[in-house]
Amino acid sequence: MPTLISKIPPLSTLVNQDEQIELRARAAREHRATALAHPNIAFIKYWGNIDHLQRLPANPSLSMNLADLYTVTSVTFEMGLNQDVLSINGTQVTGPGLTRVTASLNLIRTETGLNRAARVESESNFPVGSGIASSAAAFAALSVAGAAAAGLALTEAELSRLARRGSGSACRSVPAGYCQWLAGNDQTSVATSLAGPDHWNLRDLVVIVSQEHKSVGSTGGHQIADTSSLQPARVAGAESRLAACRQALLARDLATMGPVIEEDTIIMHAVMMSGHPPLYYWHPATMAVIQATQQWRREELPVYFTIDAGPNVHLICEAEHAPAVEAAARRIAGVQDVLISGAGGPARLIEF
Amino acid sequence: MPTLISKIPPLSTLVNQDEQIELRARAAREHRATALAHPNIAFIKYWGNIDHLQRLPANPSLSMNLADLYTVTSVTFEMGLNQDVLSINGTQVTGPGLTRVTASLNLIRTETGLNRAARVESESNFPVGSGIASSAAAFAALSVAGAAAAGLALTEAELSRLARRGSGSACRSVPAGYCQWLAGNDQTSVATSLAGPDHWNLRDLVVIVSQEHKSVGSTGGHQIADTSSLQPARVAGAESRLAACRQALLARDLATMGPVIEEDTIIMHAVMMSGHPPLYYWHPATMAVIQATQQWRREELPVYFTIDAGPNVHLICEAEHAPAVEAAARRIAGVQDVLISGAGGPARLIEF
Repeated sequence: MPTLISKIPPLSTLVNQDEQIELRARAAREHRATALAHPNIAFIKYWGNIDHLQRLPANPSLSMNLADLYTVTSVTFEMGLNQDVLSINGTQVTGPGLTRVTASLNLIRTETGLNRAARVESESNFPVGSGIASSAAAFAALSVAGAAAAGLALTEAELSRLARRGSGSACRSVPAGYCQWLAGNDQTSVATSLAGPDHWNLRDLVVIVSQEHKSVGSTGGHQIADTSSLQPARVAGAESRLAACRQALLARDLATMGPVIEEDTIIMHAVMMSGHPPLYYWHPATMAVIQATQQWRREELPVYFTIDAGPNVHLICEAEHAPAVEAAARRIAGVQDVLISGAGGPARLIEF
Repeated sequence: MPTLISKIPPLSTLVNQDEQIELRARAAREHRATALAHPNIAFIKYWGNIDHLQRLPANPSLSMNLADLYTVTSVTFEMGLNQDVLSINGTQVTGPGLTRVTASLNLIRTETGLNRAARVESESNFPVGSGIASSAAAFAALSVAGAAAAGLALTEAELSRLARRGSGSACRSVPAGYCQWLAGNDQTSVATSLAGPDHWNLRDLVVIVSQEHKSVGSTGGHQIADTSSLQPARVAGAESRLAACRQALLARDLATMGPVIEEDTIIMHAVMMSGHPPLYYWHPATMAVIQATQQWRREELPVYFTIDAGPNVHLICEAEHAPAVEAAARRIAGVQDVLISGAGGPARLIEF
């Protein structure tokens, strides 16, 4: 039974640093910590690695944390526990899911010399496995909670690196607001905040057209990115698309940013669909939303789409247009739900 | 009122060369000829030119003529006619459509010194403007009829060149069966037959999801192909995809050819969707058919998709599987009709 989510207090995007220091001190004493992290939606996408083990990306990327969606994870390093124990949304998880969490915790244990297994409980308030970056929030929260529970005082950059090793785009869920993740080496490839969550009244309307688990997850997908003949062109162009997106983001210029994020999305899905094997993440309703977005703009509704590795479409607009976009999206055949979120704060420890 | 189509006799893919010679002699005497040409479906796509005026393609392409679809065009060079007159499917056409036909006829008139305007009547037995290459059949038939009516005895290569100048892919509708169109200069960029229509019992099932005229036609599309950052990679890879496709075609090896034609289609639509402005030809039902094709193959039904500049999907399979593919396609929501065709013969003069 999920129990964590129901207990957390109303969220603020602002984080009290004194409180974080106090929570970290307590976590170190008790070998136990709870952290919250938001998923993020990429405006410039991560797809493909130059090093799969270290999850060093082929290109830099840029994203927005999603305030209203979150994962809460608690980590307790327990004496006498034989191996790590993981529960996700109240269900015990073993196999590859547990192995991946253990690998992240091992990075922490190696650093500290701590010789204890951990009990990990994780809960999210949004559907997993459908193109909302659930693993990003999960590994960002795991890294923050795990490091604190092990008594490890890490900088934001070090936490971002740790999260990246667990799930690439998780590094972008560690800093606040709008984040840029640089390509680089194991030390330098981390995310930093370009602007806080209050920089811009942007909204992400997550148009849910399927809640099925996708048949090929992102980790598998990254490994076949290089089999597409389009991946070199994608990587070569990412830097300039990111620069254009960053500049427009800082200027709060959606009319300039929007076409760049749509193009970047199309190019990523082109790589997916032209790989060996090809990955077709789009559903008929995905295409309906893509087409509708172009039509809405012709009708003076300023909204742009982006799509992660799944069928659901993220519609990006300013807050004032969110009600009209939501209403229009809900009228499209095949749309099951629309989740709405503004820009979110950083991954952080929470009182528990 | 359409009148040509109803009068033509049952078609054969075989062409009697003696009859062609006789028809050409009569056409030269009467300044009047009627020709029939099939549209073609490209397995390796043409998208983008190195010379828009001469329609010299950025890359070589490969296609199959469609026996059961055709355009019949009659050209009469008349004394005393002030300017060319065009009717398509019984409706008088002026403006850009007429200008384009006049430009093709001018190439013939310049060659022969003939100083007469022409009356052109053209009819097709398939819907135009929806990703079935209607202009290919139209300009192939116009070239064959126009040259004959002007008394110009051209080789197949010369007719293919003439058709190319009217509408690039029309050059592939001039020779018989399965045709390859080489990139090159104005003299060398023509199509030749790789194999006759009887080489392979292949079927094209044209899955109609929309009969609307597309908002951006192919000529406009070719002109913005270069605005996509993916076009250089598409062009660079076309030669090797064509070689793989040609080899598999000659070996009648659909399991090898199919994935190549799907990849080539995806790459062309990736260029379209990532251009400036982007062109989104796919509809929701297009995506449904793409996804269904992958599912059918998992269920051991060997069929592959290809899509031209429009929303309709061409499903390619061997004749023995066509009934099962047709039945499955008709069950998909949004599918309006399925046209079926085998490989067709060359553009030729017909008795009229």
